[in-house]
Amino acid sequence: MRQVLIFDTTLRDGLKSPGTILTIEEKVRIASQLARLNVDVLEVGFPAASQEQYAVVERVSREISGPIITALARATNPRDFEIAWKTIRASERPRLHTFAPISKEYREHFLKKDAHQAVEISVAAVKTARKYTPDVEFSLVDAFRADPKEVLEMVRSVVDAGATVVNLADTVGRATPSDVAVLFRLLREGIDQFGNVTFSIHCHNDLGMAVSNSLAAVMEGATQVHCTVNGIGERAGNTPLEELVAALSTRSDLFGAESRIHLDQIYPSSRLVRRLTGVNLQPHKPVVGSNAFFYASDVPQFADATDKPPYEIMHPEKLGIQKTGELLSSRTTLAELRNRFEELGYDLSSERLQECYSAFQELAMKKEQIFDADLELLVNTMAVMEPAPFNLLYLKVNAGSISVPNATVQMEVNGEVLQDSGFGHGPVDAAFKTIMKMTRRQPRLVRYSVGAVTPGTDAQGEVSIRIEEGSHLVNGRGADTDIVLASAKALVDALNKLERVREEAVIYEFTDEESWLPKL
Amino acid sequence: MRQVLIFDTTLRDGLKSPGTILTIEEKVRIASQLARLNVDVLEVGFPAASQEQYAVVERVSREISGPIITALARATNPRDFEIAWKTIRASERPRLHTFAPISKEYREHFLKKDAHQAVEISVAAVKTARKYTPDVEFSLVDAFRADPKEVLEMVRSVVDAGATVVNLADTVGRATPSDVAVLFRLLREGIDQFGNVTFSIHCHNDLGMAVSNSLAAVMEGATQVHCTVNGIGERAGNTPLEELVAALSTRSDLFGAESRIHLDQIYPSSRLVRRLTGVNLQPHKPVVGSNAFFYASDVPQFADATDKPPYEIMHPEKLGIQKTGELLSSRTTLAELRNRFEELGYDLSSERLQECYSAFQELAMKKEQIFDADLELLVNTMAVMEPAPFNLLYLKVNAGSISVPNATVQMEVNGEVLQDSGFGHGPVDAAFKTIMKMTRRQPRLVRYSVGAVTPGTDAQGEVSIRIEEGSHLVNGRGADTDIVLASAKALVDALNKLERVREEAVIYEFTDEESWLPKL
Repeated sequence: MRQVLIFDTTLRDGLKSPGTILTIEEKVRIASQLARLNVDVLEVGFPAASQEQYAVVERVSREISGPIITALARATNPRDFEIAWKTIRASERPRLHTFAPISKEYREHFLKKDAHQAVEISVAAVKTARKYTPDVEFSLVDAFRADPKEVLEMVRSVVDAGATVVNLADTVGRATPSDVAVLFRLLREGIDQFGNVTFSIHCHNDLGMAVSNSLAAVMEGATQVHCTVNGIGERAGNTPLEELVAALSTRSDLFGAESRIHLDQIYPSSRLVRRLTGVNLQPHKPVVGSNAFFYASDVPQFADATDKPPYEIMHPEKLGIQKTGELLSSRTTLAELRNRFEELGYDLSSERLQECYSAFQELAMKKEQIFDADLELLVNTMAVMEPAPFNLLYLKVNAGSISVPNATVQMEVNGEVLQDSGFGHGPVDAAFKTIMKMTRRQPRLVRYSVGAVTPGTDAQGEVSIRIEEGSHLVNGRGADTDIVLASAKALVDALNKLERVREEAVIYEFTDEESWLPKL
Repeated sequence: MRQVLIFDTTLRDGLKSPGTILTIEEKVRIASQLARLNVDVLEVGFPAASQEQYAVVERVSREISGPIITALARATNPRDFEIAWKTIRASERPRLHTFAPISKEYREHFLKKDAHQAVEISVAAVKTARKYTPDVEFSLVDAFRADPKEVLEMVRSVVDAGATVVNLADTVGRATPSDVAVLFRLLREGIDQFGNVTFSIHCHNDLGMAVSNSLAAVMEGATQVHCTVNGIGERAGNTPLEELVAALSTRSDLFGAESRIHLDQIYPSSRLVRRLTGVNLQPHKPVVGSNAFFYASDVPQFADATDKPPYEIMHPEKLGIQKTGELLSSRTTLAELRNRFEELGYDLSSERLQECYSAFQELAMKKEQIFDADLELLVNTMAVMEPAPFNLLYLKVNAGSISVPNATVQMEVNGEVLQDSGFGHGPVDAAFKTIMKMTRRQPRLVRYSVGAVTPGTDAQGEVSIRIEEGSHLVNGRGADTDIVLASAKALVDALNKLERVREEAVIYEFTDEESWLPKL
């Protein structure tokens, strides 16, 4: 069967989802899971944008094996290619990815160039990239709103210049499957080299059609699809990897094509990205939502109890969605814990495992039954730890329907132990106001949400918040069986991240600013 | 331009989303908003299933004008038609909706009949329905997995028997746009009456293709689409109304078709359904997600500041997504409040308005700035009030990083005032355990989530929980500036609902059980 390559851009385009500021450790953790998922191409970032993006791509290139590693460079900035190349050259199979706008709207708004000039810039960019590596991907931005003749000319020119992968981007998310089919058919007929080049599509889900558009391209000869885990990304996000792969797998009869994705890693990947980015999923999210395999109780009166239900077109177990196994407790041994982590797809070093076991024992004191979701929370929370300016040491709150809610807090602020108390509209508000007073920060709270990750009233609460200060927007997370304490931890986490991003200057993809210069 | 009719099934198929148990008041409130949204057909329920569903359809038929009102009846149960007809006959334009499985899988599992027998049953059902009303819709269940020849035969037979609307259902959510196009083309060519019958499609989103599949049907001649607000429904849900309508509206160049939906009611409808069902939306949900119109800050260096950004294909204001207006406060008058409610699409009776104003003043004491979201929460929370066996009178909690969390509760249980206290793993757990002890109920908590509906640390927290007892699954909601108090209110709300559903026997769509008999 024909192979469809999965180009994962969770770590670049996916992280344009507002407020998803991840640490380097967290990004490496996701990259490593994506390698386990067996994506074909892993786009890790835009190294010219900041020190942090440079460092991530560079680390992933050294540490992660399996997928092609790719990094972004702006067509107009030759320095970007030099920087990007430095970050990926250590990888097994490095690819440079560059791009230019082709639609009138994008060309004129971002580039102030006509189509002919845009083609010249693109050709020069591909030639620059080819000096570093034989694997070069070129993306046409906003291709489905552009004049098809101009698309054809740009594609022909970049292929002649040496692009090995040509990607058409529906940047604004307004294409339909029939638009996609028409344009790919045009390329198939108009480009002599069509069979020798990897044709690819990059969709956005603004009108809910990203999956169908990607599949329409596959039906017309595309052999690579850009995806993100959980479909995260700017606005309505990118093509959700799990939906595309499930469709290919369920309907191989129609598509005659398959991906190399390891299906049983779909759910662990979804969980990890959900937890680390703080982008929650609705219960009816296809494939990985909590209700995606939950059937209402229509009782088939005539059916044998042994009949396979006719409505199940996919099997949750194959996607790594585990039926709850035996529950763990305070009597669980280290070896049993390691086994369970392996079943869940986590391959921990013995040092990491030991840390997790300590945290596990502490949790088992508070909570009678430990679920798989608790373990995932545990291992993912542990991944976040880095030395930080603010640390919460003690919290106490009183609240209720009549009393004035108050909080007493002890915390370490830049090495100094402080304590204070304060009031608020509820215990969380009281704790937040006290913490802000002690850290002398006044961010605006733009989102606050709590999800219990495990069933039962002794569930671990996982709090996710988003705060804003000036142009900076960060997420924070905290988990505890006490949600007020979890909330305070989340705020402290967010404040620590704010300190970090504040230092950083970032260059955006659609500017001509000088690239950030790596220390050589 | 060609008209596409929007058949809204939020209140029937949408409410198969697990745990979305609504009161009659809440369903009428949604129906009234759907009429304001200007849906063409409003499917309110399956009246033979229970007293409650009977009562809802009957009330909506009497009170809501505008859309065609329709109710479901099983093809095999003549009594269903009699019952359904009683509920809709008072409406301006009543429609009966019946259905039968056509795929081998569904026929054999649920009906134990061959295709020929299924056609006979369908014809008889349509004839029965036509005795009551000239407007009869017939749905073919699991049509896209069935033998196309058998689909064609069933369609031809029900049209001959008098069906005015024929709906093809992708019940298991595995169709693709090309499958849909093929089958509709076959019908267009094989059914002489094609132009005289309304052809319709009903999709599920298991593989993320519900919107594209619905639009593929429209391109091949379908003139009605089944949708639910926010795409709620069983598993991955149904076709999201707002995505379908946005696609039709944005791409009228391609589809040459339009809906009669009032676009500015899209967002208010989404908010209302989200709040009352407790089914949350992910931030990257197309059209109505919180990030759907949030752009990352790619700075167009060459662009004039006055340029219209090239990436905005829809305008949020047109969809009823308001830019935050002037904030209200304790100094706001009743007239100002009424104006703001009108801007938000709420048309309140003077009595309701007065109640809301009292609640508003109480809130303004606790919260400096009142946002539109606060008002929506207020008016929607007020809609829920019904006399109930359990009432929370007083709550006090203590918690923190070292102390043992405890709660003191006073509440009314079946008319008697009780008080008690208890411990837990956190303040919410302590409150929950105490409340369960006092009400002598032991449901399992299967979901717990908190969303702050307004920005700022003095946000109103809105807690949504789901509890399970035996075969019953209900949601509860509570709102307060104190999330512990909001949580306790949510639990009490859920416990009250549990008392109510416990009484009710429900008949499912795919059984041959005797219908529930309405009191005549």
